Amino acid sequence: VRTGVPEIVYGEGKSASQIVKIVTTMLQSQNNILVTRVTPQKASDVTKYLPELTYDTSSKMLLWKKHTLQKTKGKIAVVTAGTSDLHVAEEAALTAEMFGNNVTRIYDVGVAGIHRLFARIDAIKEARVVIVVAGMEGALASVVGGLVTSPVIAVPTSIGYGTSFHGISALLTMLNSCATGVTVVNIDNGFGAGYSASKINHLGEYTN
Amino acid sequence: VRTGVPEIVYGEGKSASQIVKIVTTMLQSQNNILVTRVTPQKASDVTKYLPELTYDTSSKMLLWKKHTLQKTKGKIAVVTAGTSDLHVAEEAALTAEMFGNNVTRIYDVGVAGIHRLFARIDAIKEARVVIVVAGMEGALASVVGGLVTSPVIAVPTSIGYGTSFHGISALLTMLNSCATGVTVVNIDNGFGAGYSASKINHLGEYTN
Amino acid sequence: VRTGVPEIVYGEGKSASQIVKIVTTMLQSQNNILVTRVTPQKASDVTKYLPELTYDTSSKMLLWKKHTLQKTKGKIAVVTAGTSDLHVAEEAALTAEMFGNNVTRIYDVGVAGIHRLFARIDAIKEARVVIVVAGMEGALASVVGGLVTSPVIAVPTSIGYGTSFHGISALLTMLNSCATGVTVVNIDNGFGAGYSASKINHLGEYTN
Amino acid sequence: VRTGVPEIVYGEGKSASQIVKIVTTMLQSQNNILVTRVTPQKASDVTKYLPELTYDTSSKMLLWKKHTLQKTKGKIAVVTAGTSDLHVAEEAALTAEMFGNNVTRIYDVGVAGIHRLFARIDAIKEARVVIVVAGMEGALASVVGGLVTSPVIAVPTSIGYGTSFHGISALLTMLNSCATGVTVVNIDNGFGAGYSASKINHLGEYTN
Amino acid sequence: VRTGVPEIVYGEGKSASQIVKIVTTMLQSQNNILVTRVTPQKASDVTKYLPELTYDTSSKMLLWKKHTLQKTKGKIAVVTAGTSDLHVAEEAALTAEMFGNNVTRIYDVGVAGIHRLFARIDAIKEARVVIVVAGMEGALASVVGGLVTSPVIAVPTSIGYGTSFHGISALLTMLNSCATGVTVVNIDNGFGAGYSASKINHLGEYTN
Amino acid sequence: VRTGVPEIVYGEGKSASQIVKIVTTMLQSQNNILVTRVTPQKASDVTKYLPELTYDTSSKMLLWKKHTLQKTKGKIAVVTAGTSDLHVAEEAALTAEMFGNNVTRIYDVGVAGIHRLFARIDAIKEARVVIVVAGMEGALASVVGGLVTSPVIAVPTSIGYGTSFHGISALLTMLNSCATGVTVVNIDNGFGAGYSASKINHLGEYTN
Amino acid sequence: VRTGVPEIVYGEGKSASQIVKIVTTMLQSQNNILVTRVTPQKASDVTKYLPELTYDTSSKMLLWKKHTLQKTKGKIAVVTAGTSDLHVAEEAALTAEMFGNNVTRIYDVGVAGIHRLFARIDAIKEARVVIVVAGMEGALASVVGGLVTSPVIAVPTSIGYGTSFHGISALLTMLNSCATGVTVVNIDNGFGAGYSASKINHLGEYTN
Amino acid sequence: VRTGVPEIVYGEGKSASQIVKIVTTMLQSQNNILVTRVTPQKASDVTKYLPELTYDTSSKMLLWKKHTLQKTKGKIAVVTAGTSDLHVAEEAALTAEMFGNNVTRIYDVGVAGIHRLFARIDAIKEARVVIVVAGMEGALASVVGGLVTSPVIAVPTSIGYGTSFHGISALLTMLNSCATGVTVVNIDNGFGAGYSASKINHLGEYTN
Ligand SMILES: Nc1ncnc2c1ncn2[C@@H]1O[C@H](COP(=O)(O)O)[C@@H](O)[C@H]1O
Ligand SMILES: Nc1ncnc2c1ncn2[C@@H]1O[C@H](COP(=O)(O)O)[C@@H](O)[C@H]1O
Ligand SMILES: Nc1ncnc2c1ncn2[C@@H]1O[C@H](COP(=O)(O)O)[C@@H](O)[C@H]1O
Ligand SMILES: Nc1ncnc2c1ncn2[C@@H]1O[C@H](COP(=O)(O)O)[C@@H](O)[C@H]1O
Ligand SMILES: [Mg+2]
Ligand SMILES: [Mg+2]
Ligand SMILES: [Mg+2]
Ligand SMILES: [Mg+2]
Ligand SMILES: [Mg+2]
Ligand SMILES: [Mg+2]
Ligand SMILES: [Mg+2]
Ligand SMILES: [Mg+2]
Repeated sequence: VRTGVPEIVYGEGKSASQIVKIVTTMLQSQNNILVTRVTPQKASDVTKYLPELTYDTSSKMLLWKKHTLQKTKGKIAVVTAGTSDLHVAEEAALTAEMFGNNVTRIYDVGVAGIHRLFARIDAIKEARVVIVVAGMEGALASVVGGLVTSPVIAVPTSIGYGTSFHGISALLTMLNSCATGVTVVNIDNGFGAGYSASKINHLGEYTN
Repeated sequence: VRTGVPEIVYGEGKSASQIVKIVTTMLQSQNNILVTRVTPQKASDVTKYLPELTYDTSSKMLLWKKHTLQKTKGKIAVVTAGTSDLHVAEEAALTAEMFGNNVTRIYDVGVAGIHRLFARIDAIKEARVVIVVAGMEGALASVVGGLVTSPVIAVPTSIGYGTSFHGISALLTMLNSCATGVTVVNIDNGFGAGYSASKINHLGEYTN
Repeated sequence: VRTGVPEIVYGEGKSASQIVKIVTTMLQSQNNILVTRVTPQKASDVTKYLPELTYDTSSKMLLWKKHTLQKTKGKIAVVTAGTSDLHVAEEAALTAEMFGNNVTRIYDVGVAGIHRLFARIDAIKEARVVIVVAGMEGALASVVGGLVTSPVIAVPTSIGYGTSFHGISALLTMLNSCATGVTVVNIDNGFGAGYSASKINHLGEYTN
Repeated sequence: VRTGVPEIVYGEGKSASQIVKIVTTMLQSQNNILVTRVTPQKASDVTKYLPELTYDTSSKMLLWKKHTLQKTKGKIAVVTAGTSDLHVAEEAALTAEMFGNNVTRIYDVGVAGIHRLFARIDAIKEARVVIVVAGMEGALASVVGGLVTSPVIAVPTSIGYGTSFHGISALLTMLNSCATGVTVVNIDNGFGAGYSASKINHLGEYTN
Repeated sequence: VRTGVPEIVYGEGKSASQIVKIVTTMLQSQNNILVTRVTPQKASDVTKYLPELTYDTSSKMLLWKKHTLQKTKGKIAVVTAGTSDLHVAEEAALTAEMFGNNVTRIYDVGVAGIHRLFARIDAIKEARVVIVVAGMEGALASVVGGLVTSPVIAVPTSIGYGTSFHGISALLTMLNSCATGVTVVNIDNGFGAGYSASKINHLGEYTN
Repeated sequence: VRTGVPEIVYGEGKSASQIVKIVTTMLQSQNNILVTRVTPQKASDVTKYLPELTYDTSSKMLLWKKHTLQKTKGKIAVVTAGTSDLHVAEEAALTAEMFGNNVTRIYDVGVAGIHRLFARIDAIKEARVVIVVAGMEGALASVVGGLVTSPVIAVPTSIGYGTSFHGISALLTMLNSCATGVTVVNIDNGFGAGYSASKINHLGEYTN
Repeated sequence: VRTGVPEIVYGEGKSASQIVKIVTTMLQSQNNILVTRVTPQKASDVTKYLPELTYDTSSKMLLWKKHTLQKTKGKIAVVTAGTSDLHVAEEAALTAEMFGNNVTRIYDVGVAGIHRLFARIDAIKEARVVIVVAGMEGALASVVGGLVTSPVIAVPTSIGYGTSFHGISALLTMLNSCATGVTVVNIDNGFGAGYSASKINHLGEYTN
Repeated sequence: VRTGVPEIVYGEGKSASQIVKIVTTMLQSQNNILVTRVTPQKASDVTKYLPELTYDTSSKMLLWKKHTLQKTKGKIAVVTAGTSDLHVAEEAALTAEMFGNNVTRIYDVGVAGIHRLFARIDAIKEARVVIVVAGMEGALASVVGGLVTSPVIAVPTSIGYGTSFHGISALLTMLNSCATGVTVVNIDNGFGAGYSASKINHLGEYTN
């Protein structure tokens, strides 16, 4: 592995002290560290013992950025439907950045006002991989998928109420997308999308 | 009721002979007749006895058009995502026409190639009510809902496979639409959409 | 757009400070404002900074009523099954009023005591659009749909326990209604019903 | 047990020859026999060997009526919403009759045209037990439950399409009925409803 | 109605002050009162204003017992599988008692130790109606249904974890019971079972 | 592996010619062969080419019994609720026999007539492992589990209609069994139950 | 029963005082005691009155170990995918130990890093019964099932988010395992797995 | 677009004559053609009119290969668990080949016999993108995902019975994969996986 490539800890369901213990061991290696799904309270408990970690409130990730990775030339676009999808989008965007990717954020361009999407479509088309983050009915993935030629990773979010069923509605939309070139990850799994996008985005770079 | 307004028979789960019996009684009244969800085989069995009925293969409806209703000035637009949604769309369109509405068909304008939708958007905007018929992920309802100001009735269809779950994916998309002004009917219920659209479209006419 | 027509903010999943920021920008325009799904706590946090907003506890909406819209002659009836459906019904009724509609409230007329419904049926029939709000088994939508000739918008609510499944039972009832002319919105989506009803109710007015 | 009380065979999933074998043994006893859920083909195969059995096409039951049971004075009313619910209703009605009950059939009185129900309500109220058979949204159970004071057994049927989910919509409606005094049996289980109604209807008789 | 027959208030989703208002009006009539699904906190808020009401902690019901109804000779047996089903069982038992029924409680006789059930089976057989209350897999309803000849009302409870799905497992068991004569009510609906059982139990009494 | 221990082929979704090809290769080894889930038609196509295979119609398995395995002293009991569960039970029983187990069949002892079960309980208790096969509500697993001290493997079957949901009701019952010592396999998976029971039953034998 | 074999109390849904009462009675017998699913708060309330009980925080069980049972020679292996599955795994392991089994713990060997599993595979193969505890997608059960010849009991856990659906994803994986010899218990039911494994593990011992 | 890049027709739900009409128009352009999900019967009806099309029975695709696209240097690996997954795997593989990709097939390496997977792991690791096709419990995606560093696209198939729920079990497994870098497409959507993999695989090529 390249120096600096982050090690990942899944923070949910682990206590602050378990995280401290795992991260302490990792700190001895040469890698950056990324702990996902950490509540503010847990983050504050962890950073008391490990002040070298920083907490990103929007993505709810704890980060240790010891090394600066070289940035890719190719871009990953992270596109969201609404402002409520921000947490998941940031988890995707920051993950991708931690893995050395050049990330463009295009937020709040849901299909109810499609002109907002068209105003930003060039920036989206420029990217080598597109991550679409959307809750409620998740239609944005299909519309973006129809407009771009690059691979699209769709992230359903648990935003919505009633029949959104905590993300199931958006998930089904994305799995049934009539636009081709769309693959899907688990509900609210911004991390997985960012990670897969990074792998794809690096393909071009590696072969050079 | 106005002369000619059709009487409705729900054809599914009724035998040809049951339909013949019900329609025969109805024929004595002054109204048109519309039998929904009739298979070709059943239709041919019925028309042997009742040759005055005509069968519409695309909508799978049996019709008796004794009276010509006056057409509304206002239009109902019936919009579909793909060609497979045709049967349901025609059920909606023909129902609306049987109730005296002026209907515009705008078919095969799914969001995977959104330019096709934009090419027809003026005709859609002209309508006083819009019916959107879509299967798979059903995203078209949200996109159309965001572009028009008229009320939109969304009809999920059972087109698709796997996680389309025979129309559930499209249904959930439509119920969770981030575009306002969208109401929804049962999966494949073109009849219900056409009927409700007719009621709405006649509101303007009535008050004149 | 007509002067005064409200702008909408979806309040759920937004922090008080996010709402303050969005509304502050909007205040500069000439439109009324309507923020939906705001908890009492969040409302009180927002109104500290924006005392010109009023909070309606029954509908859980924050309102800025700068302009008085002209009221429609045609009426929207909002009908509920039980007292627990009140919050959703008021979200529908107040939304419709904010968009300039003449609204009649007919509450607590569930089918278990159908005489209560019949006692109020004339007021319901008088309306140009009927909104039916019901939880548990949601049968009211079918009964009202069978009694009136105007279009009916049904709103399932999450009221109930056990197999009501937080509104799914009522939703399915409404989607499968044997009464024609019924369309449906998301569980607890009083806002969407009020908004669609307003669009429909204005059709008659516009053509005059 | 009283002489003549029928023995029951569940016909589904049993071959004609298995049914012949089971019934042949039973014929030796003094009881009537009732085989449920028998297809016409299977019935014809069975009656070749056992011509003393009669087949009822509407309820799809095979019957051996050796003994005539004394009829109850109290009545069981079987009420249906639509004509498609006939098979299930007849399974209930005939089962009740085979167990010696006085049965009143009140068919095709669904809530979409509630006047049809009111035209027959006195006959329904006269019964000591009421069975309500309904598919699609199943609202009839709640309306009848609200109008009568006798115990109501609700039978959801698999009639409908799309979100009727083969009877689930009607089942949920009935389980969540806002009318008290309603209990429910499995989808399409006319037999179970007829059997339970018979037990209840005989309570009054026994104590005399 | 007979003097003293209770009026019912569904307490869930109503505030203490709403309950106070409704009950205050009712107190003027000659009937007993029964408010279901009241939390201890809410009960204490209500009884501050209405000290004549008593709160039953096991059934979570508020009661006003002004009149003593004459008790039926016939008995209703309330049978439970485990101790955790107690709340629902008491809701059923107390409801039945409030309506003047003679109630026998047979608790904690689940099928995992079937000898406990057999030790009490005579008391169960003696009843004219049997209510079976069970969570987890709900098998008790089938076993009891097979042992008694009286009508059985089964109440699934939300007791259990994992795949008990808050009562769905028990509900399905009961709806599919291979024992005949079993009808079912909503999950945790002890009230409905007690009420229906009372109606059935009174049939015999009325005819005398 | 011991000589003769069968090799397994999963027959469903494989064509007759694919099965012929796979089995032909296997025939060269010293092992018995067992092909599961083979329709009669497919079996007849296969045995044309491979007449040394025998087809068992009740279990729908194709067998090649070249070697006779030594039988265990310990017994496996296969217990079923109804006659419709026979196919699955035989798949379990025959699988266990093919693996050298001593199998006792105790069929048609469902809980609706619990005396039938008690009549056979000694034979069940004698077994070292018990397989319980049941559809509809699957309560038999809990009752047997409560009566025996040996490990119980429960097999839900797809027998039933309506809310049996093709085996889901029985599956949930078995997973939530209040009797301890019950583990569960997939719906209709008689093979898996027979195979696991064989492994367990051989434990005692091996240590001797 | 052998002296010392524990009696079991299901702690969930029982109050501290109910547990005290039940355990106090049990203490008089000669058996050990095991109370499952006890929260720390409830445990502390109980041990105030019953200081002879010890609380195990990882398995959330209250234990009374008066007798030391003889340990089996044969081993039960408890294998987990991740650290978050610890609570359930310990419930299984400790239950098995309380019943006198020799238990080997092999934790944190999920399939994402399959080398960790292979590093421990010999210890797993040595066991006479294997318990596999896994959440999220639960794939570990299939991989282990394919590597060992002993019976495998799979325990799905509710660990995960989004489409893990609180253990359903893992449960389905385990029920559909392509590896034979795998049986399954309820989500998070470590107790049931440990108990069944003990029964199986003792088979070898008993026959000696 | 590059010359020769195929145009796609979704064949399901289209009649043979509709396909003939659509393809006839397409034939005039310079592109290859690929029609998915065509039954053998429909294929034979189409090729009567369009003998230049060839039908691939394993993938059920109709192909028109006028142009030979230049093959990528990078490889796509298509990996399957069982032989029943072949149809879906070939749809993926052939789609990828039609888009000019170098494809390696590694079939029948399911996790129940993990040595088969390890025997082929080098060929899998060599690929720039890996498609994993699996039904039943779908565990292969997690195991492969943990072994390779390239992006993985997982395709759940509808192979299985009972709780496989026509692919839902495999779908959930894949969405919840504990291995990172896995994205998912609809059940049985080999086409979508092949298409997305092609987009990803060409990224490296394009930048050269
Ligand atoms: N395709 C359909 N979907 C839903 N409802 C329908 C359909 N066709 C007819 N109906 C309704 O069914 C009623 C007639 O039912 P029936 O008396 O059974 O023929 C009509 O009043 C319509 O409201
Ligand atoms: N309660 C609600 N339910 C559904 N949609 C809503 C609701 N409130 C507002 N909306 C929609 O949300 C849009 C505003 O979203 P946002 O920009 O996130 O504030 C409005 O245009 C409405 O269409
Ligand atoms: N965690 C658990 N999961 C499933 N069943 C349990 C559990 N703990 C105890 N049991 C069972 O519950 C029975 C005791 O239930 P109870 O009489 O309610 O304490 C015991 O015999 C066990 O079989
Ligand atoms: N098997 C398939 N699964 C999902 N999408 C497909 C499939 N085959 C074709 N498509 C998509 O369907 C579109 C063509 O749809 P149509 O115009 O209905 O033929 C293509 O652009 C593909 O993106
Ligand atoms: Mg695209
Ligand atoms: Mg709009
Ligand atoms: Mg109407
Ligand atoms: Mg009543
Ligand atoms: Mg009975
Ligand atoms: Mg036992
Ligand atoms: Mg194995
Ligand atoms: Mg990997």
